[in-house]
Amino acid sequence: MGSVECDIAIIGCGPAGLSAAVNAKVRGKKLVLLGSEFCTPKLHKAPHVDNYLGFHSISGEKLRQKFIDHVKAMGIEIERDRVTAVVPQDNSFTIRARDKVYNANSVILATGVSVTKLIPGEDDKLGLGVSYCATCDGGLYKNRTVAVLSYIPDGVDEANYLADICEKVYLLPLYKGHQDRQAKVNKKVEVIEGEKPLAIEGDTLVSGVKLEKRTLEVEGVFVIRDAVLPDKLIPGLDIENNAVNINRDLATNITGLYAAGDNTGQPHQLAKAVGEGQVAALNAVKYIDNL
Amino acid sequence: MGSVECDIAIIGCGPAGLSAAVNAKVRGKKLVLLGSEFCTPKLHKAPHVDNYLGFHSISGEKLRQKFIDHVKAMGIEIERDRVTAVVPQDNSFTIRARDKVYNANSVILATGVSVTKLIPGEDDKLGLGVSYCATCDGGLYKNRTVAVLSYIPDGVDEANYLADICEKVYLLPLYKGHQDRQAKVNKKVEVIEGEKPLAIEGDTLVSGVKLEKRTLEVEGVFVIRDAVLPDKLIPGLDIENNAVNINRDLATNITGLYAAGDNTGQPHQLAKAVGEGQVAALNAVKYIDNL
Repeated sequence: MGSVECDIAIIGCGPAGLSAAVNAKVRGKKLVLLGSEFCTPKLHKAPHVDNYLGFHSISGEKLRQKFIDHVKAMGIEIERDRVTAVVPQDNSFTIRARDKVYNANSVILATGVSVTKLIPGEDDKLGLGVSYCATCDGGLYKNRTVAVLSYIPDGVDEANYLADICEKVYLLPLYKGHQDRQAKVNKKVEVIEGEKPLAIEGDTLVSGVKLEKRTLEVEGVFVIRDAVLPDKLIPGLDIENNAVNINRDLATNITGLYAAGDNTGQPHQLAKAVGEGQVAALNAVKYIDNL
Repeated sequence: MGSVECDIAIIGCGPAGLSAAVNAKVRGKKLVLLGSEFCTPKLHKAPHVDNYLGFHSISGEKLRQKFIDHVKAMGIEIERDRVTAVVPQDNSFTIRARDKVYNANSVILATGVSVTKLIPGEDDKLGLGVSYCATCDGGLYKNRTVAVLSYIPDGVDEANYLADICEKVYLLPLYKGHQDRQAKVNKKVEVIEGEKPLAIEGDTLVSGVKLEKRTLEVEGVFVIRDAVLPDKLIPGLDIENNAVNINRDLATNITGLYAAGDNTGQPHQLAKAVGEGQVAALNAVKYIDNL
């Protein structure tokens, strides 16, 4: 697994992440912009945006394209990698993702907000059988039975990876259009369609995934989402009213870690996100320069 | 002097004020946008802006024009009036300006930052002989001698107004290009050019303006600037490190009063200002709806 060094890692390619990237670049920092396959579906779906100063009456998709074009014009690449954990070190951070490991002096969380609710038990059992990353934690489940609860197509790759290690792998695709990818599923993986996970169970360690009419007996559960909630990504991150707790500099309670955009709280609006991306980036730059 | 009623009064037509106006308008509020003759000279002078998401490599003037066009396209007029005082009332504010009085349920201060330093004594003697508004306070100096220290062409009108009331009026034009307006000065006004005010003097009340080689004996001093500092505009406004003290909602210590843009502190940047204008406007709307 490759490793990448940078000054600033920006997690998320919505308006806040893109704005942070543009500002870090202007200040001459080496940055990595980690994003999903499709940046900012929320903006893409907005039929009409009227309140982002400079563009009167523009479609969300057109504005999205302008944002992406801006970033590209500055020579910034979007790394299509999915972050599974951010680990603070002395004066730096290790960012574990699906494809690579990144080391950065400062991190900006621009992860947006997810409407996905946690599965009952997911939170309690994190690290006790629940994981967000097969390549990171798969080794712990050698010759055991695991389930992959997948909200995005990536779950197929994770399940295939686990199939080579584990005794048995269940894959529950929880998104539309899974059938298109069915052919790619390893034969050792048992796909369970149309059944939803109601809870992750176990006394201390995970013992099963409860479905409507039965329970899958497993020792590991991999939950694959587009974005992991900030405090699940970074244990110890201070959260208040469902938002990352930040000060005026958009610094979190963890030194060197900043947040910007919808994850810092209401209003969930474009100009706020872009402004916060800028402020977070400029303060991250200042932080690095003072290291 | 006319009086105007509105939901939200926005003071300042830089990026923060324009963004606040657009957002208040989108939410269907009756707003007044109070600006100077030329909105945002700072942006006008920027040769090149790279870090406002959506516009790569644009001149400051072009971006300024896009901002103004956006506001115009939404049917928002900029009132070219100069605010001299904001007075909190029960659940509302009275805004005194050069030409009119405005009554608003909520006020957004988007006054930017001024590089002008206060004149020594200006702060101490505010209300004790120092004033920012001839039409408001001129009547107090009937048959007395006053000085108008003017950083903008408006000072000529203020001096002329005072000439009809006062015994004697000195006018010190402290900006370039005053000669073009010389013809408009009332004959009763004595123009003093090339001498700078070093201090406003007096034991308790104002007694004079100290110049390099002499002291003008006056009882009133009118300081005419493009923007009055926020805490001079609204006595009691909480200021910290030269910035308006605001919380995450951009609310100040005075209920119903919000601030946005450079006046809330570093970084003095475009996207931050636009984002804060939005957040301040949306919170002002929420405040009004809950009244």
